Amino acid sequence: MMIHALADVKSKQIGKDTRVWQFAVIMEDVIIGENCNVNCHTFIENGVRIGNNVTVKSGVYLWTGLSIADDVFIGPNVTFTNDKYPRSKQYPDEFQHTRIDKGVSIGAGAIILGGTNIGKYALVAAGSVVTKAVPAHAMVMGNPAKIVGWVDTDGTKMTALNENTFLDKANQKWILNNNELNKQ
Amino acid sequence: MMIHALADVKSKQIGKDTRVWQFAVIMEDVIIGENCNVNCHTFIENGVRIGNNVTVKSGVYLWTGLSIADDVFIGPNVTFTNDKYPRSKQYPDEFQHTRIDKGVSIGAGAIILGGTNIGKYALVAAGSVVTKAVPAHAMVMGNPAKIVGWVDTDGTKMTALNENTFLDKANQKWILNNNELNKQ
Amino acid sequence: MMIHALADVKSKQIGKDTRVWQFAVIMEDVIIGENCNVNCHTFIENGVRIGNNVTVKSGVYLWTGLSIADDVFIGPNVTFTNDKYPRSKQYPDEFQHTRIDKGVSIGAGAIILGGTNIGKYALVAAGSVVTKAVPAHAMVMGNPAKIVGWVDTDGTKMTALNENTFLDKANQKWILNNNELNKQ
Repeated sequence: MMIHALADVKSKQIGKDTRVWQFAVIMEDVIIGENCNVNCHTFIENGVRIGNNVTVKSGVYLWTGLSIADDVFIGPNVTFTNDKYPRSKQYPDEFQHTRIDKGVSIGAGAIILGGTNIGKYALVAAGSVVTKAVPAHAMVMGNPAKIVGWVDTDGTKMTALNENTFLDKANQKWILNNNELNKQ
Repeated sequence: MMIHALADVKSKQIGKDTRVWQFAVIMEDVIIGENCNVNCHTFIENGVRIGNNVTVKSGVYLWTGLSIADDVFIGPNVTFTNDKYPRSKQYPDEFQHTRIDKGVSIGAGAIILGGTNIGKYALVAAGSVVTKAVPAHAMVMGNPAKIVGWVDTDGTKMTALNENTFLDKANQKWILNNNELNKQ
Repeated sequence: MMIHALADVKSKQIGKDTRVWQFAVIMEDVIIGENCNVNCHTFIENGVRIGNNVTVKSGVYLWTGLSIADDVFIGPNVTFTNDKYPRSKQYPDEFQHTRIDKGVSIGAGAIILGGTNIGKYALVAAGSVVTKAVPAHAMVMGNPAKIVGWVDTDGTKMTALNENTFLDKANQKWILNNNELNKQ
């Protein structure tokens, strides 16, 4: 574990081999797994849970109600929210819960509205505004974000054989059914 | 008043019960009212004026020419500008003036172009790019931001009875006339 | 040269009259020219090259693979990327190269995908998502960013005389040919 001398970290629950860089602020009730990289200029609020091998780039602020699984990449200036109708100094009974599943990558500057779930290995293109749940393996883009393709676990786009059948790099077929993609 | 030891605050004009968090930078000629919350990773430039009960989330940088009324919420990574045709090291005779009126909420990651006025209790959806004035009580969304509805003082959407008549939660009717909404 | 006491600067290659502000982080293998302004809350990674008279506003993080010519303006919360298919803890053989040419201005909150070139004096409107090369003198806007006009070296829009002929402020004609604008 490496916590830079210029970071302000109160949590005692940060896993081994995780690195926390300059001017990061991490509150006390935060749990971070092993081998993560929390870049400079970040903030992690009480209640946030982060798995292993997660990357949090600069300009990312993680608010109460957010949980992040293993192997997630959060690009620079990605923005999260946890209140649907924010008004200054008025707080909801409970903040929205947002769950980012295993292996997801969120591109630079994307905005993730509170209460959404992003399914495993999904790829959110840079600059997207995610307003509803994203299925596993989907690639989404735009404002509001829409599904534009399907990606493999390594993030490369699958080849569409037809509307509902996609081929990964190992020539394995995947079938799309009700916005859910599964190996044939 | 609480100014975190890791903030860099030169202003002596910060109201009581206002809190300023880690790595916030506030210049000398800045006035901030009472009971505000200036989150970590923020910057407030000379000339900026802020009212009471204002929330400034992380990743927000407030430039000369901006004034913010009471009860305003500015979400994370909201971005302001003050120069229409920026060129490096060339400065306009005067920076643009931008006024955010009482009770406005600006959603995460929205961009507010310089010279615009956002009317009281308006709600700017996350990720919007605001390029012109927003009327009071309007909800705007998209790039460029367009009016998509009308909101009550607490931020909840009013019910449309017809194109020009809206009902708030107290069953009070509001009439829309020339993009201006008033109680009947 | 002025490096603020609250910045964390390892580079020894910063030109005269350049100013670096609070909480800026600059790594060792970074070269910055003369008379630049690096605002607070910024990060410059190893390998980045920056010319003279460049402005880097707050919330901007410059990654390996990026080179920036003279007289460039980078607005607040502008976001760069250097990996097309990011996955946490998996690194490409080489990061993408991005080149910002002389005199370019990038508006607030714009996102510049890795591997793109922005031609000299181009103007990227606030909130744009740049997904491909931008020709010199073009003004681009939107997600994805599209050409919406042509600008003079000072950033003001040229007047269209017809589809392919534009007039600058000095009444000089410019001819558009294959998305390339040249003085007649």
